[in-house]
Amino acid sequence: MKDYSFVSNTVIKRLPRYRRILGDLSEKGVKSVSSTELSRIAGYTASQIRQDLNNFGAFGQQGYGYNVERLQRQIGEILGLRNEYKMIVLGAGNLGQAIANYTHYYKSGYQIIAIFDVNPRLVGLRINDIEVLDAGSLTEYLENNQVDIAVITTDKDSAQAVTDVLAGSCIRGIWNFTAAEIDVPEDIVIENVHLSDSLHMLTYYMNQNGLRIKELSS
Amino acid sequence: MKDYSFVSNTVIKRLPRYRRILGDLSEKGVKSVSSTELSRIAGYTASQIRQDLNNFGAFGQQGYGYNVERLQRQIGEILGLRNEYKMIVLGAGNLGQAIANYTHYYKSGYQIIAIFDVNPRLVGLRINDIEVLDAGSLTEYLENNQVDIAVITTDKDSAQAVTDVLAGSCIRGIWNFTAAEIDVPEDIVIENVHLSDSLHMLTYYMNQNGLRIKELSS
Repeated sequence: MKDYSFVSNTVIKRLPRYRRILGDLSEKGVKSVSSTELSRIAGYTASQIRQDLNNFGAFGQQGYGYNVERLQRQIGEILGLRNEYKMIVLGAGNLGQAIANYTHYYKSGYQIIAIFDVNPRLVGLRINDIEVLDAGSLTEYLENNQVDIAVITTDKDSAQAVTDVLAGSCIRGIWNFTAAEIDVPEDIVIENVHLSDSLHMLTYYMNQNGLRIKELSS
Repeated sequence: MKDYSFVSNTVIKRLPRYRRILGDLSEKGVKSVSSTELSRIAGYTASQIRQDLNNFGAFGQQGYGYNVERLQRQIGEILGLRNEYKMIVLGAGNLGQAIANYTHYYKSGYQIIAIFDVNPRLVGLRINDIEVLDAGSLTEYLENNQVDIAVITTDKDSAQAVTDVLAGSCIRGIWNFTAAEIDVPEDIVIENVHLSDSLHMLTYYMNQNGLRIKELSS
């Protein structure tokens, strides 16, 4: 895989979204798209979009725009989506089950191969045909199976302890759904989905939006 | 509520995280914290943190740092967390259920008052003591109840249609968990949790991380 470390995080963060929008267009049978049209959908300026894509050597053709399918594939390659990733889910609660049931991942190369929980009543259940295993067997499991990603959906207070078990194993990435700030070893990448942060952002902007409306009508 | 529209989105986005970290410190009995200590936990530079907080008039005291409890409360006020928000969840699948079961929201002023689904087998069920109602009754429900936020956990293809039903209602915010790019009226704020985007970012950085390690050892 090419080294894109020269590209800023802000640009990288927009790529999955571009790819998703291109996928939607492709499903609708759209063959090519201008940066202006992408701008209307994505809400960034057309010049920003052109700049973003230029980073990766993706150039639209003057008057024709970008080839939708090719650009989607190019972005997928940049994101490493040609690889296959094996995942385990730690925590078989509602959120863990929701993730295990979200079969859409399979299509794009992400495969959940086991779920772990400490609750003996959940151990042995199958969720979306994936077995729930005893959390006590996690270390042994990681020694005997190639797993790339661990999804943490435990309670907040267990998140760091669970991560410590993952250190030194085959795990290279953690997808953390707990509110905890987790310390990870250098060879593990962490991506956080802090749901309460997202909800707080929503209500912040609702308040700002409400304020603006009140001012306008006064 | 004060108008903080002069503060950049990048700064605002860090606030919920600062607040969460301060909450953790407060739970551990920590009374004051320096920007250097915050920097170690949050991973931003101390000067960045000081700049961020200065935007809101929160000043640490030289040699003493920030008062943890007061700063947490100040950030909460900026984020509008003193308000109470009524929420409904659209879609009673695993993710909708996970959100309905995440009772932590209640403590911080977010209350889920109903869940809607099109599936007649789910209608009438109670999840975390919240009733699942028929999606067909949504418009009527919104006319008779004060609701602030709609959480969309339907399938992607229904997301826009559901949003169109919300337009013109009491709803002021949408928390969108589907992969859809939704068009919302100007008086509604939208916050997206695009899980697949987050997963793609994780694997992008895993690949970049792996590459770096390979180069170093060669």
